[in-house]
Amino acid sequence: MRLSKSFIKTLRDAPKDETARNGALLTRAGYIHKEMAGVYDYLPLGLRVIENIKGIIRGELNALGCQEVLMSALQNPEPWEKTGRFSDAEVDIWFKTEVASGGLLGLAPTHEEPITEMLKSYISSYKDLPLYVYQFQTKFRNELRAKSGILRGREFLMKDLYSFHASEEDLDKFYAEVEGAYARIFDRLGLGADTFETFASGGIFSKYSHEYQTFLPVGEDTVYYNEDKSAVLNKEVYNDEVLSDLGVAGQKFSETTAAEVGNIFKLKFKYSEPLGLKFGDENNEQKTVYMGCYGIGVSRVMGVIAEKFADDKGLVWPETVAPYKYYLVAIGDDAAKLADELYAGHEEEVLYDDRDVRPGEKFADAELMGIPYRIVISGKTLEQSAVEIADRATGESKLVGIEEVKNLLTK
Amino acid sequence: MRLSKSFIKTLRDAPKDETARNGALLTRAGYIHKEMAGVYDYLPLGLRVIENIKGIIRGELNALGCQEVLMSALQNPEPWEKTGRFSDAEVDIWFKTEVASGGLLGLAPTHEEPITEMLKSYISSYKDLPLYVYQFQTKFRNELRAKSGILRGREFLMKDLYSFHASEEDLDKFYAEVEGAYARIFDRLGLGADTFETFASGGIFSKYSHEYQTFLPVGEDTVYYNEDKSAVLNKEVYNDEVLSDLGVAGQKFSETTAAEVGNIFKLKFKYSEPLGLKFGDENNEQKTVYMGCYGIGVSRVMGVIAEKFADDKGLVWPETVAPYKYYLVAIGDDAAKLADELYAGHEEEVLYDDRDVRPGEKFADAELMGIPYRIVISGKTLEQSAVEIADRATGESKLVGIEEVKNLLTK
Repeated sequence: MRLSKSFIKTLRDAPKDETARNGALLTRAGYIHKEMAGVYDYLPLGLRVIENIKGIIRGELNALGCQEVLMSALQNPEPWEKTGRFSDAEVDIWFKTEVASGGLLGLAPTHEEPITEMLKSYISSYKDLPLYVYQFQTKFRNELRAKSGILRGREFLMKDLYSFHASEEDLDKFYAEVEGAYARIFDRLGLGADTFETFASGGIFSKYSHEYQTFLPVGEDTVYYNEDKSAVLNKEVYNDEVLSDLGVAGQKFSETTAAEVGNIFKLKFKYSEPLGLKFGDENNEQKTVYMGCYGIGVSRVMGVIAEKFADDKGLVWPETVAPYKYYLVAIGDDAAKLADELYAGHEEEVLYDDRDVRPGEKFADAELMGIPYRIVISGKTLEQSAVEIADRATGESKLVGIEEVKNLLTK
Repeated sequence: MRLSKSFIKTLRDAPKDETARNGALLTRAGYIHKEMAGVYDYLPLGLRVIENIKGIIRGELNALGCQEVLMSALQNPEPWEKTGRFSDAEVDIWFKTEVASGGLLGLAPTHEEPITEMLKSYISSYKDLPLYVYQFQTKFRNELRAKSGILRGREFLMKDLYSFHASEEDLDKFYAEVEGAYARIFDRLGLGADTFETFASGGIFSKYSHEYQTFLPVGEDTVYYNEDKSAVLNKEVYNDEVLSDLGVAGQKFSETTAAEVGNIFKLKFKYSEPLGLKFGDENNEQKTVYMGCYGIGVSRVMGVIAEKFADDKGLVWPETVAPYKYYLVAIGDDAAKLADELYAGHEEEVLYDDRDVRPGEKFADAELMGIPYRIVISGKTLEQSAVEIADRATGESKLVGIEEVKNLLTK
């Protein structure tokens, strides 16, 4: 992308009501635009980050045999009434709206009910099981307060996966596979070192569920962890009984704040029972389907990565999610000629700052935008038949020969 | 995709209330699932068609220098009140919802107001113009009746492009470029031969706007066309004054029904004026930005293609949008061995029907699903070191040598 052709520019100020660091930085760097508290637009750079995050998740889930769908946002109350969840007393974050032909619809805050209902058309026999269905879909939650930038949205993007099984053993087996996939996903997102599978309340159907918590100063959750972080517990289950249950009683635990980036949950019959999702087993007996659900907050992950790695100069994206890998700056006409040449054919990995502004402004924008590698070509580097490549994360820079750079770009 | 691993199966019946042919066929073939009138889920096959349509549109728009964003669905009334369009009297298809912190939000039926408002942060000088911003976004329209399958949605997917210019000449120039891109898009979607740029009412800011109408028996619009179809007019502007205006007075016109798959519109100051989107010109005088908008109904296009090409056996997809190019069937163990070999590495182009069902059922499903080419391997074809390839559209089939098929798949 040539920056001169893009409408993106960095802004001096974020909106006055943007108190969250991720929201302010992402706005100033030209990734998002705030519509209202908890509701954001994704500008070209931001949308590329979102798509990169989705790509990593999609790849890992497809490898498990998961199938992608897209459910509707508008929700017929009927299946939700069967589980009691259309009631505002039960679920207090519904957006509801009247439909012209009469009656009330909801905006999906999650999709267990419609997906369970839908699969009644597709599951009838044990031969149809197991199956794993996921989507990337906008969720709507009528939060009273939403002051955490894209960490807590009234409208946000989520990956939600649902699994369907003939037996509890099969659910357990797949649950473990998802744990593996989640570890790989958070590693690839650059969050692996600080993201922990965390024991949380399992509700009435499981002893525990698991959250994926990224340790983060501005995280809204409180978690406790032991010395080697082999046991991490949400505050809600941090008590003697659970510690003893997990065999970690007597160990030293510390408290920290964290942001929940994902969760996985053995639903068992929680939705399949009230909605009547059944299958005929080998003896043609009707049995209720076992279910699991597995979420990752896609837009929240983007906010967590922004918060986690940012420094006083701006954003710092891991290569895997960065909108572009290289930020290209040329100083002088000869340099521009080489820059044009390097850029050609690499529009998807190079953000070429060809604007008619001072180099200092370009350097500052490269840092604010957090592009992993900044390539600078100048008279000085050309004297050595080289370009300068600076690493945004470490700040280190080195001269790299022109032919070598061409090889870097072509791969 | 191995069909044995997919939850997709063809259904004998569509929902009883599904009176539209596109809705019924797409449901029976496993592409969509009806949530309620005008609201559908996209199953794996359907989502692939949607993504193919988006890919064609995205490619043509990016080639014009358009930049992709994603605006929010939830709408703050403020900018809409400035244009008068938050009023139900003015726009009668709003879904509105109360936000917990107080006040009313809308669900975007279109995005002129928020995108104009947003760009006030990014446009200040003539140097920032022109710019072209588009998105693929779910639109919500509270239609009283929605009985046309995915041809008319209460929740539907649209591509909306907005252009911003310093002068009317520049708007006209880009408008013509979009006309070219739209012609290429509808050609690539397989609708080129039956889709016509159609004169329609331009409202108060332009004499005419242009719709893209696909001639279709179940289309909801009525259009008039002359013998060589060089002039096509929406019923609303089919009168003597307009015919004379267009220099086609006295020609013979015929009436037909059509579905509107796109529209393009010179908005000029319609939104930029009330919302105050201005730029400083070369003399630093503040001027109002010229705007254009350009829509394509993505999910509607899917429905139109379904309606247009379907025959009595089911769907018929053009190759460019088909979820898979080949439907692979093996009859017998030796055939299955070769099928496994052909399938390996081609999961994205081959839908491999490896289910344990009769060949006749597989053939019927291949036809209902409308996959462009059916490859059948049997003892009989193997005797001739060949496979049979049948063309879904023409019904013609031929024997193709095994090595030749491998080449077809590898490209």
